[in-house]
Amino acid sequence: MARRRQIYEGKAKILYEGPEPGTLIQYFKDDATAFNAQKRGTINGKGVLNNRISEHVFTLLGNIGVPHHFIRRLNMREQLIRQVEIVPIEVIVRNVAAGTLSKRLGIEEGTQLPRTLIEYCYKDDALGDPLIAEDHIECFNWCSREELHDIQDMALRINDFMSGLFAGVGIRLIDFKLEFGRIWDGDYSRIILADEISPDGCRLWDMVTNEKLDKDRFRRDLGGEVEAYQEVARRLGLMPEGGDNAVLDLETHRKKKGS
Amino acid sequence: MARRRQIYEGKAKILYEGPEPGTLIQYFKDDATAFNAQKRGTINGKGVLNNRISEHVFTLLGNIGVPHHFIRRLNMREQLIRQVEIVPIEVIVRNVAAGTLSKRLGIEEGTQLPRTLIEYCYKDDALGDPLIAEDHIECFNWCSREELHDIQDMALRINDFMSGLFAGVGIRLIDFKLEFGRIWDGDYSRIILADEISPDGCRLWDMVTNEKLDKDRFRRDLGGEVEAYQEVARRLGLMPEGGDNAVLDLETHRKKKGS
Repeated sequence: MARRRQIYEGKAKILYEGPEPGTLIQYFKDDATAFNAQKRGTINGKGVLNNRISEHVFTLLGNIGVPHHFIRRLNMREQLIRQVEIVPIEVIVRNVAAGTLSKRLGIEEGTQLPRTLIEYCYKDDALGDPLIAEDHIECFNWCSREELHDIQDMALRINDFMSGLFAGVGIRLIDFKLEFGRIWDGDYSRIILADEISPDGCRLWDMVTNEKLDKDRFRRDLGGEVEAYQEVARRLGLMPEGGDNAVLDLETHRKKKGS
Repeated sequence: MARRRQIYEGKAKILYEGPEPGTLIQYFKDDATAFNAQKRGTINGKGVLNNRISEHVFTLLGNIGVPHHFIRRLNMREQLIRQVEIVPIEVIVRNVAAGTLSKRLGIEEGTQLPRTLIEYCYKDDALGDPLIAEDHIECFNWCSREELHDIQDMALRINDFMSGLFAGVGIRLIDFKLEFGRIWDGDYSRIILADEISPDGCRLWDMVTNEKLDKDRFRRDLGGEVEAYQEVARRLGLMPEGGDNAVLDLETHRKKKGS
């Protein structure tokens, strides 16, 4: 492990140089942050669960033709991905008012939006990832107009698919965050889905009870973070037989063996 | 005066019922506010100057074919306008980084933007007029897509014209705020320019010295607010002969006469 060159450390992930040019290894940490990292903590086993959930969702999105950076999962906390030039924009897809949208526009949390809303934030921790409009993106050339169209098209397809996926397991997809990157083939580039899709960047409410199964449990001190993430993995069929702690037990077992 | 029905009181203006259906009287106060009315004060004679400057700019914009609500100036502080259904959006046109743009995106004030940037804020004092994107406007139907296109086209034309107007008198147009309204003709509506155009809602810098000739003098406690507004009026040829205080003197004179 020590020989690997670290490329970048983010709030919840570390990127290492990959085994071949054009690849990276994405390592999922248990660190949790909220409110632009003003609140920090740890959710035990989150990295393991998010690695597995993100693998699952990216694989399914690939099956419907959404291009993405995921290549394969390497182990409990790591996945091999394609190296991309990250577009410095967080794309937020919203179906129901919650979080900053509710606060900024005075819309009660839980209100169904008239239609799906796509928001963009400029990816800059020091500035607190400020909301931006399409005109800012064009003015400062953070991506081209064509790239933004591709991003919008993909974001809406991903929303449709994920809304269905989660509806199938009794979960309402409130909103989620996506990041995209650029890959080059000679002089040509195209946009692919990057980063991760997990309860860290989605709002997921139980369809019957409205219970929150996502990072809001941490943000709002609701408790039960680990159980919520496990519940999402369980409903998606990602927890091995033998109880909710099996994924984590597996990792503990692996560590003990020194592998 | 007492018999007139007040329709609305804003931070810098009062709207009264007009003499005919479909008209209003717009009264310009000397009250100044900043930072969403957290800072309050008075700029002596501002209302008189803004009434005159706004009349001048609206008249010139009408001459190039920009439809607007201004009918005629009635007296020192009042103008007759067409009644419109206000679109609840503040349209901010920016040529040079300043104010909230500089702060939110970390761009040094005074930096020429790569191209003109149009920003939208949702007009809601209680929410602090939050920045929004086109997708919010469409999602919540604050105006139609066609209306927004008309607004954008008008905003860019107004920017070109005003940039020229102020360049002609040695002033750099940094940014400015516009509001638009809907007028109805049977079942059909169209969008026209409303509100006011004055140093209250524009950033105007002297081209040589970069001296601020606008409400930032009040916002930032720079002093010389009255003189700055007078200087803009003077350069636009709106101050009567006899010195910089003539407009205000006129009003004082009028009040003394009891007219």
